[in-house]
This record gives sequence, structure tokens and C-alpha cells, in this order.
Amino acid sequence: MRLDSYFYPMQVEIISIGDELLIGQTINTNASWLGSELSLGGVSVRKCTVIADVKDHITAAIDSAMKSFPLVIMTGGLGPTKDDITKDVLCSYFDTELVENEQVLERIKDYFEKRGRPMLESNNLQASLPEKCTVLFNNYGTASGMWFEKNGSILVSLPGVPYEMKGIFLEEVFPRLKERFSLNGIYHITVMTQGIGESFLAEKIGAWEDKIRAEGFGLAYLPSPGSVRLRLSSDQGERNKDKIQAYMEELVALIPSYAYSIGEVSLSEVVGGLLRKQKLTVGTVESCTGGKLSGEIISVPGSSDYFLGGLVTYSNDMKSSLVDVPVEILNEQGAVSKEVVKLMAENGRSKLNTDICISVSGISGPEGGSDDKPVGTVWIGISTSEVCDAYHFTFGGNRERNIQISVLTALNLLRCKLLGVEIENK
Amino acid sequence: MRLDSYFYPMQVEIISIGDELLIGQTINTNASWLGSELSLGGVSVRKCTVIADVKDHITAAIDSAMKSFPLVIMTGGLGPTKDDITKDVLCSYFDTELVENEQVLERIKDYFEKRGRPMLESNNLQASLPEKCTVLFNNYGTASGMWFEKNGSILVSLPGVPYEMKGIFLEEVFPRLKERFSLNGIYHITVMTQGIGESFLAEKIGAWEDKIRAEGFGLAYLPSPGSVRLRLSSDQGERNKDKIQAYMEELVALIPSYAYSIGEVSLSEVVGGLLRKQKLTVGTVESCTGGKLSGEIISVPGSSDYFLGGLVTYSNDMKSSLVDVPVEILNEQGAVSKEVVKLMAENGRSKLNTDICISVSGISGPEGGSDDKPVGTVWIGISTSEVCDAYHFTFGGNRERNIQISVLTALNLLRCKLLGVEIENK
Repeated sequence: MRLDSYFYPMQVEIISIGDELLIGQTINTNASWLGSELSLGGVSVRKCTVIADVKDHITAAIDSAMKSFPLVIMTGGLGPTKDDITKDVLCSYFDTELVENEQVLERIKDYFEKRGRPMLESNNLQASLPEKCTVLFNNYGTASGMWFEKNGSILVSLPGVPYEMKGIFLEEVFPRLKERFSLNGIYHITVMTQGIGESFLAEKIGAWEDKIRAEGFGLAYLPSPGSVRLRLSSDQGERNKDKIQAYMEELVALIPSYAYSIGEVSLSEVVGGLLRKQKLTVGTVESCTGGKLSGEIISVPGSSDYFLGGLVTYSNDMKSSLVDVPVEILNEQGAVSKEVVKLMAENGRSKLNTDICISVSGISGPEGGSDDKPVGTVWIGISTSEVCDAYHFTFGGNRERNIQISVLTALNLLRCKLLGVEIENK
Repeated sequence: MRLDSYFYPMQVEIISIGDELLIGQTINTNASWLGSELSLGGVSVRKCTVIADVKDHITAAIDSAMKSFPLVIMTGGLGPTKDDITKDVLCSYFDTELVENEQVLERIKDYFEKRGRPMLESNNLQASLPEKCTVLFNNYGTASGMWFEKNGSILVSLPGVPYEMKGIFLEEVFPRLKERFSLNGIYHITVMTQGIGESFLAEKIGAWEDKIRAEGFGLAYLPSPGSVRLRLSSDQGERNKDKIQAYMEELVALIPSYAYSIGEVSLSEVVGGLLRKQKLTVGTVESCTGGKLSGEIISVPGSSDYFLGGLVTYSNDMKSSLVDVPVEILNEQGAVSKEVVKLMAENGRSKLNTDICISVSGISGPEGGSDDKPVGTVWIGISTSEVCDAYHFTFGGNRERNIQISVLTALNLLRCKLLGVEIENK
């Protein structure tokens, strides 16, 4: 996937230090957070390198980054324990020495005093900092940040503890960068879509995409199972805000059955908002999703305003006993069929006494598929006071994905029903 | 943090391609997963580099990695859209050309046929692969993996979609690496626990931990919401397997109500195994978890053997209409009470006609708490043919966490019941 941050004047490499990142014990959320903050702030993140707490590796990574980019931001390796060697490496690289910083020592003493905890010798050492750097005070812990400059490039070293790193970045680093490089933030806006793959989406909105690209906006396709986010970006800050909003509304109008919101909102929030606005209640009757559809609906705080309850009719017996699906129909049509999901929705609506009822029955896999109904076959029914419809899908992924996509698809069908948007379905 | 994987003979650099990773829109879970799999398999992960979908950047990263490490694993940039340029870059670097691979083309056609979806020209292009590579078949999507060799180093290129990447790695890449380099992994064994925090756990198993550490084993506490994994490791490969197994059994016997498995298994799998073995069926009656408990139970393939169905009684009306909780009791005791969860479990068991029924009612938040019953208050009921018990918890996290922990706690209570293990609860 390719984004359009290449016109940003300022470029950065992020270096993360720590074996726990390399062996996957800790996920590198620091780099993601910094990547997001920096790119939204108008700095182009060109590279991110993760290395171990090993002197040669750190030196090589710093040297390569300082030679390639005007800005390098490094996190980790500043703890009080012996395996954290970043400060020594930085002293060698910038040809300087550790000296005790009085102000920092006072702050560390104060930090422990306030918490009523004893100060260890190793904490004392955290006040020793490279003479040539600008110290970046840490209001959240004991490891200071450092700002170095050499041959026209800047290197910032921050601790690896996420909230300390974030605090120093926001309070000490970003304001300096902004002032020094007159950064002009990027304006982003996202349209969320469900039910259409990346390539089909690209075909459908091709002309619109060409138009906005010609106007200098960037567009990114960000797929996840069952949905694709479309993100439009502008390097003109909020200057084009109204224009972008209008373009986004155009986009939504092009694909009304897929685009479910402007802005990063979940489908269950969108559906919840519509139900609340229309003063309607909803219930669920689930087979293959086994409660995950109702679970998704209630993930929204306050969902008890419109969600009353649901039935999980996992076995065929339950489909008969809880929602009166006749055994003959189950035998003739199978549990994954138009007739059955319609009965599940229709009868579920009266049993649960809700305005709307959604039903799902499918073959999630890995077992249970046939030539006729392969794994991934899903029927979704929706019953309202006026109509009862059923929709057929073939997802065909693995069990987890099939369940996840079924849930999103059911919510999007409900959204379309609530809005009167025509549903594209064979 | 510093680990001890430096004695591993085989070293790897991971390269992740994608602007969405650099700008923090997607967290690089692929690198974490690969890092974990590789290091558990006996490969030392020395570096991880994230770069943009830009030709020069990809070429430079490949070249630097191939010159430094015997193995390079790359993910991303293999999608069908124009911004994915990895294949072209690989052709230039390995001095080869794209040729259409008949076998892959058949697989892609088959992939779309099975899903009843039309194939686009861009999907056709995915069958064009570099002539000089060994193609790694993808059983989960349309982008093949590729295996190259040059000057004694190996480069493996995999798609960025996580489940496709994982599938190809496990089926095609790791078996080849294992055979070729006679990898001698670190022996790891994990005990899964639920219901006890890290520090309490450390107190309870202190003596045991000292003993195994004295014998040269490592122990890691890996916490996640509601559970802690304890991972014991040995650098002696499988040599101490029996001894470690015995130690792990000792550990489980120390904390039987918390430790639910030796080995990385989910609670729903453990519970499912017990139900199947004991030939018992289970049903659920959920309020605050809204279907997420049944959803977790059915996440296990084949769960229809023991899970029949459930009721989501989200509103008070549903508690009365679906499981006959008298309105007076709801009014007097409140929906989050011992009496109500006991009735939900007891009556649910007869309505669903199952051997066991679990019920959950709680205040997930953010609204609905009181001095008496703060947010995070949860009651869980279990009814069997012999007894009906209720258990009280105060989790007190945020909504999402409260729901998640309630689900895990309910499953662990069911496990204890099935095993006759005494439950530690006020």
C-alpha cells in the first residue's frame, strides 16, 4: 500500500531499541504512535528500524540514519539496568562524556520522595547525561530525553516506556520541531466502507479518485477483514476542510450501500445511532455467529436503549424450540438456507418483541461444507414490521474471518435497511 | 530489555513494507508474530526494518539486509493494486523477469470460482512471478510467497495480509528453514492462568520459581487482560522435556483454580475438551456480556458437539420473558444480583434443555454504577443437574475490559466446576 506523504519537506527515521520488540514479546506501539503523531504533524516518516540492545548494532543504526535523514528519533535503552547501553553509545557517537546534571538529579530525588519509595544507586546514574546534548526533561519518570545535533542532522533519544516517551515527545520534542521547521500539519479525513474489496472499490470510485488526485489530494486504501477505510489527506492543513468534506460526501453518495461513515466510527456505533434516532429496537437470532453479532451491538455504551436481547440458536433443535422453525424445513432446506433465516428473523422478532430482528445462519468451517454450500456460505435475514428479506453470501475465509465478516455484513445490511439504501446482492 | 538469543546460530532481518506501518495507521503485528515464531524456532531476530512502498527504499533495504544476514524475511507490497511494487523490485535485484506461473493462475481462478466472484485483470497479474524464485503457494489468498537465494543469503517475500502471511510461513517457509539449517529451538512451555494478577501469582509460586531458576530455567510472566501466561524456557532444546513437564505439573497443582492448561490453549478449548469428554452440553444466559460468552465458546471448531444455544437477556423484560425471572425479584434485588443470576442459570438450563447453564449479569459501564454496585460489579451463575451456585466479582476496568474479563472468568468457573476444583471466591 502506498500513501502520499512524500511531499512533506521534513523526513524522519524512527529507531526502536529492545530485544523484546524483535522477538515479538512486545508489539512496537511506540513506533506506531510516533509515526502517527509525526505524519499528522507534517513530518514524513520514511523508515523505522528495530534493533537489539547491542553496542555495534545501535552505533550502525544511528550512523546510517544520521547520514540519510535530517531527523532521527530513537526510543528505548535508557532504563536504569545494566543492559540499557544507549547513553554510552550516544557518548561515543557524539564524542562527549557523561556528566551529572544537577537539575535532573533534583527531579529524580523528588520523583522518589513523592512516591515514598527508596532511591537506588542505579537511579542516581540516570542523572548522568551526555555533556553535549540538550536535556529533555521527563515529567513522568526518571529517564531524561536527549537532543543532539551533528552535521546538520538532529537525533532525539527518548525512553521506551510508552507514557514517558509520549510525554517528552509532546512537551519537549514536537514544539521544538514545529518552531524550527515551521511544520504545516496534514489534514486527514476517513470514509469507512464495508462489503466491498479493495480492487472493486477502486474500480467504482476511479473517476472520483482521479479528480481528487488531480487536485493534489492523497488517497489511501486501508483494508482490514470485511472492511476498507479510505483516507484522504491534504498537506494544506485545514485550509481545504470544506472542500474535502464536500468531496467525501460525493464519495459516500457514489457507494451508499458500502460507505457507512465519514470519520473513524464503528458500524455498531453507526447502526446504534440510527436505531436511537428512529426510535427502533432490535433483536438478533444467531446460528453461525453464536452471539458475536449481539456482542458487537452491545460493545457500544448505552446500547440498551435499542438492543433488547437475542437468541443463539446454534443447534437445529434450538432453531425449532426457540424460534419455531419447522423440522421439515430444516430437513428439506438445511439450516443454512433462505427459508430458515427468514423464519429465524420473522419469528425472532415476535418472540423478542422488537421492531427489527436480524438472523444469521452459515457454515463457518472448517467442517460442514459441501459442493452445494461450501464453507463460507452465509444467509442473513432481516425482518421489520413491513418486510422480511434474506441475503446470500459466500465469504470462504477461515472460521474466525467468516464469523467476523458475517457480523459486519449483518450490521451493514441493517444500516442500509434503516436508511432505505438499496442493497447490492445477488 | 535484553534477552539471550545471541547463541542462536541462524540470524534474520525482517523487512516490513507499507506506508500504513510508518504512519502508525496499522500496527506492525506481522513483525511481532514473525519475531516470536522465528525466535521460538531457534532463529535469532537481529533487526527489523519498516520502509515505504518506494522502489529505491525497498532496493536499499534488501541490499543492506542480504549483505548482513543469511536470512531476510520480507512482508507486504504484494497486493494487486498499482502501488504494490515489490515484485518488480525483486526482479531487478535478482536479475530476473516476471513469467506467468500456470499452477498459480489455476489456483487464483479456482479461488475466485469457489467464492463465486469475478476475477479482475489485476488478479491475473498475481500469477506473474519472478522466474528465478521458488514459488511458495498461498492457500489463503491470491498473492504467492517467493523464495530467492543470492550469494549465500536467502530472501523470502510474503504478502502483508496477516493470515495469508502466517499460513505461508508455517506451511512453506519454516519447514524449509528447519530442514536446511537443522534448527535447534529453545524449548518453551507455557502455563496459562486466569483470575489472578501478576504480583499475587508471583507470591503464590515464589518458592517454586526460585527452585526452577536455580536449575537454570527462565520464567517469564506474560500478562494480558484477565489472564497471565507463565513461560518457562530452556536453552537445552528438548533435552529436559520430562523434567520441565514435571515442574509444570507441580505448578498447576499449586494453583489449580487459576492454571487452566499446560501449553498455549484458549480457555474455550479447555472447557470444550472437558465438556466433550464428560459428554455434557452447555448453554448460556447473558446480560452484560451480550452474547460474547457464547461467541467465545463457539470460536472453537466443532463446538456444536457440546454448545446448543444461548439467550441474551439484555433488558429486564427479556430476563422475565425468556427465563422467567419474576419482576418483583428484578425490582427488589436488581438485575445484577445473586438471586437473578441463579434464576437465569437455573431457568436457562431448562429452557435450553442443556446439562449445564452459565449466566452473567453485571455493570460494564461507563454508566449504571452506584455506590453499592460500582461499574465492574459482575455476578456469574452456574447451574448443573446437582447444584446452582453464584459468584461475585468486582473488576472495575473500562467497559471493554469488564466484558472481556467476565467472559474469561465465566469460562474458568465452568472449568473448575467440571473438574471439581474448589473456587476461591468471597
